[in-house]
Amino acid sequence: MVGLGPGAARLVTPEATAVLADATDLVGYGPYLARVSGRPGQVCHGSDNREELDRARHALALAAAGRRVAVVSSGDPGVFAMAAALFEAIEGGEPAWREIDVEVVPGITAMLAAAARVGAPLGHDFCAINLSDNLKPWELVTRRLLLAAEADFAIALYNPLSRARPWQLHQAFELLRGVRPAATPVVFAHAVSEPDERIDIVPLSDAEAERADMRTVVLVGSSQTRLVARPGGRPFVYTPRRVGGR
Amino acid sequence: MVGLGPGAARLVTPEATAVLADATDLVGYGPYLARVSGRPGQVCHGSDNREELDRARHALALAAAGRRVAVVSSGDPGVFAMAAALFEAIEGGEPAWREIDVEVVPGITAMLAAAARVGAPLGHDFCAINLSDNLKPWELVTRRLLLAAEADFAIALYNPLSRARPWQLHQAFELLRGVRPAATPVVFAHAVSEPDERIDIVPLSDAEAERADMRTVVLVGSSQTRLVARPGGRPFVYTPRRVGGR
Repeated sequence: MVGLGPGAARLVTPEATAVLADATDLVGYGPYLARVSGRPGQVCHGSDNREELDRARHALALAAAGRRVAVVSSGDPGVFAMAAALFEAIEGGEPAWREIDVEVVPGITAMLAAAARVGAPLGHDFCAINLSDNLKPWELVTRRLLLAAEADFAIALYNPLSRARPWQLHQAFELLRGVRPAATPVVFAHAVSEPDERIDIVPLSDAEAERADMRTVVLVGSSQTRLVARPGGRPFVYTPRRVGGR
Repeated sequence: MVGLGPGAARLVTPEATAVLADATDLVGYGPYLARVSGRPGQVCHGSDNREELDRARHALALAAAGRRVAVVSSGDPGVFAMAAALFEAIEGGEPAWREIDVEVVPGITAMLAAAARVGAPLGHDFCAINLSDNLKPWELVTRRLLLAAEADFAIALYNPLSRARPWQLHQAFELLRGVRPAATPVVFAHAVSEPDERIDIVPLSDAEAERADMRTVVLVGSSQTRLVARPGGRPFVYTPRRVGGR
């Protein structure tokens, strides 16, 4: 289970590169597989994005049959990606699958790549919430957002919207505007580290869902998150390590 | 500002390696500098662990004088590490420091390296809390722990204890035992990816602070986090993507 990081080859770890080179089979969502240059003889198994559990079962069946299988994942496989689906498939699958030698190779997850591009907005306590309600009730998402705001976490929002769910991010912003200062910095980070990277920093009062798409991660500051203005450049965004006069 | 990942060279990104090779000066906490093989002519500036702000100012002064400075950080510089201190130093420092070309190179942070070693315990919504009360009141830490528990986040605890603070992790466990099931999996991950790596998985009811030290990150499952037993091996730990019958 290999994390490819946010996009750029320079953010793929040597561990990931080595595991990919050693595999007999590569399994993954088509666009992620396309980021990997398979060597001659390697078998590529592409699939659709929404078929995570089927993809995991397919990979496990191949591994149980003696293949060395690398399942590729964007970012870090353990953060709203393929790893949880793999272990779910193992738990519900063939007893023999539990004996497969599984290695998870971590990767640079989107929120950390995005944070690095603007400063250190996650430099203090923070949380990560998947805004998709494909697999959980929307009420749970809103409850978590409110509790995260009450805890004054900086908040990273993954999967902020999709064609099937255009309204979630809008609702999330409305909700946060009720409890966080209007000036709270919000970072829209699209396609971080890729050629079409685009970063917008706006106050929460002006945060509009339309700025995001399926390749965007959204970071919402805590009450302490600050902008450092720069002459002729995008400001730095950071959350101080210090709270309450310590 | 360069993230070196959790420890192993195979988890250092090519981007980090390239930036380190290009620097004239390396700045950092001694043991982190020791992980970097400086090339001839590079100047190394080691310092003590608690002098983050002084170290940041020193690096900025060098950069303002025209040096190419790499500040090294364990894990990801943006997660309870050097990046927030750097931007704090810029904000409070010389106006010219705001014009320095700052690049943050993300790294594999401890909680993600630890999660990868046991499965996917952070596979659903989660938060990261620094247990140190050096820079924030302990009351804020306990409030965040309780709200995180109420939100049913999986929780990563950084800096769980130190010689100066032996009691925080004990209090955190006591507090969580009041609100999370006794069987909740707790992962103690010590020195992940290094030769002396040690991983313990215990139920919350048996979680004792003595299992942790300054090189440990602690992961506490949500109410949904599960163990998958394996014949003759450590169980997998994962948090399902699915909640509430979806």
